[in-house]
Amino acid sequence: MSLLDQIIENIEEVSIDSNGGIRDRLNKLAIPSGSLGRLEEFATIYASIKGSTDATIRHKVVFTMAGDHGVCDEGVSAFPQKVTRQMVENFLDGGATISVFARHVGAKVVVVDCGVKAEFEPVEGLKIKKVGYGTGNIACVPAMSREQAIKSLEVGIEVLNDELCNGLDIVATGDMGIANTTPSSAIVACLTGQDVSKVTGRGTGLNDNGIEKKISIIKKALDINKPDPLDPIDVLAKVGGFEIGGIAGLCLAAASHRIPVLIDGFISTAGALIACEIEPKVNNYLISAHISAENGHCIALEKLGKKAILDLDLRLGEGTGAVLGMGLVEVGVKILTQMSTFSEAGVSTPNH
Amino acid sequence: MSLLDQIIENIEEVSIDSNGGIRDRLNKLAIPSGSLGRLEEFATIYASIKGSTDATIRHKVVFTMAGDHGVCDEGVSAFPQKVTRQMVENFLDGGATISVFARHVGAKVVVVDCGVKAEFEPVEGLKIKKVGYGTGNIACVPAMSREQAIKSLEVGIEVLNDELCNGLDIVATGDMGIANTTPSSAIVACLTGQDVSKVTGRGTGLNDNGIEKKISIIKKALDINKPDPLDPIDVLAKVGGFEIGGIAGLCLAAASHRIPVLIDGFISTAGALIACEIEPKVNNYLISAHISAENGHCIALEKLGKKAILDLDLRLGEGTGAVLGMGLVEVGVKILTQMSTFSEAGVSTPNH
Repeated sequence: MSLLDQIIENIEEVSIDSNGGIRDRLNKLAIPSGSLGRLEEFATIYASIKGSTDATIRHKVVFTMAGDHGVCDEGVSAFPQKVTRQMVENFLDGGATISVFARHVGAKVVVVDCGVKAEFEPVEGLKIKKVGYGTGNIACVPAMSREQAIKSLEVGIEVLNDELCNGLDIVATGDMGIANTTPSSAIVACLTGQDVSKVTGRGTGLNDNGIEKKISIIKKALDINKPDPLDPIDVLAKVGGFEIGGIAGLCLAAASHRIPVLIDGFISTAGALIACEIEPKVNNYLISAHISAENGHCIALEKLGKKAILDLDLRLGEGTGAVLGMGLVEVGVKILTQMSTFSEAGVSTPNH
Repeated sequence: MSLLDQIIENIEEVSIDSNGGIRDRLNKLAIPSGSLGRLEEFATIYASIKGSTDATIRHKVVFTMAGDHGVCDEGVSAFPQKVTRQMVENFLDGGATISVFARHVGAKVVVVDCGVKAEFEPVEGLKIKKVGYGTGNIACVPAMSREQAIKSLEVGIEVLNDELCNGLDIVATGDMGIANTTPSSAIVACLTGQDVSKVTGRGTGLNDNGIEKKISIIKKALDINKPDPLDPIDVLAKVGGFEIGGIAGLCLAAASHRIPVLIDGFISTAGALIACEIEPKVNNYLISAHISAENGHCIALEKLGKKAILDLDLRLGEGTGAVLGMGLVEVGVKILTQMSTFSEAGVSTPNH
């Protein structure tokens, strides 16, 4: 049995226990019932997945998955392709946004080369797991072969499995790949059945002409490659990306180890959609960290049935929204593990 | 000149520099322009107030202002009045929500007895600054005299001034006071001109009958006391609360020392409204941390012209939403102080 098949087989159904023991514990806390709103929801999700109201969060990891995209040749991004490599180096130097945000919330950053079109020296913090040197240009050819699509999923599984021995309580996903909103829009259009124009946005900063061109390129990619919406691995292969496959693999692997996953923005959500189409039980392990400014993210989240934690008009990727959401999930978990009950605190309960 | 008058006189106009040197610095960072959305806005506000793009946040303090309310006798809260005292003790024991959340974001908690109907032993972390033993029942009499209203504002000023010697870069406001959504709704109705029914909510958990009764009590309080909407100190005296005056005083004092203030939920926003009516220059020093589940909070924020950072259905008070928002403002500030520029990181700029 392949690594992918093993992981999928190990994923257990988790039911989010909104009315059982976790709710009982929340109701005993010295606060008006329900007054911590969505933080109580995050606590409930975490405790349900871990199967305990005492589970704390110690080890937080954000995986920033990097890959290049042949479709960059079509001029669908405001930035040149070499920026993918340059940004990977910036992540490793600690001056990138994800480096700063991860330090702020106390998360470790693992950068993964899923298929950047450049060679890296092996360094601390970087996993070199190349599936290829950039994908094919989806405006003309498939992004990758079916074998490469499976390999990209397994990259996500391998890097997550590698971290287990260091301790891993909660995961955040992130991405880096110049032009990767283009394959993400193609995936979201294909898996939700929505019009390409509704799920395509400005990415890193296209103008009106740029966005029209991007929409026509995505339509062409779907026409030429004909991804089968009922076969998520086919969708990944035909119009996806190596880092998007890696993110989907992370979701599958995390679910198989009962680890909650904070999903970042549009690209990560495209990866999460693929994971949920491969195995719908993954869905309950996922938390949407933020709603991105990118068009179509809300459509992708609706398909997943998720309401994002944060709405801060972020549109950077890297895992930046995911780690900020992770910090708020951690606050929710601390409600269960650190707060006093009415009786412990000697506080009177409501009159009625 | 009174302490209050001195503080008001010292408040300088601050202009939020969205297009000058701060924007220049943000544009040099190795990210697509504007891709950090509202975090860039928070960075801009902080740096504008501090007058520097290098200003860091080291000392964070949340002031949880406590007071009792005579109107509690009318049955407007689901909890008995003694819970105010009990919760103050819970804050000091470290098991309350604000204790947990403040530890999470690295903020110090200063609890202030502005007028609880109980005696406290002097202990570390509690400032005893009683203006009275609970306010008058506003359904029958004014909450307090004009002298007490001024004194309650000065309590906020004094406790903030006391903290300056320990270092104080950013402030969060918080409240504790059984029944204090009632005076807050009265203040918001009076200062915004809105219908009482539109600015009155369930507080800690009233049912439909409870809320109808609460609305009629607030209408009666406004009819009997006739607060003058053009005289914010009169509004505070007639239908306010000691801790609400304390919060307004905190806002005035923070502005006078060029310290940004994170405003918590409905009660804190009522206090902020009073501060801004006393001195409109205060407004630019204020950041709304979260939108509460309490009816009428959005109306109060609209009057201040603020969009909240977080929307998590919180309705607890204590400063819980404010410290979570403070954590996100800190992330915004770190964009300016810790991130690499395009040239530092060796990252290429956009093609266009």
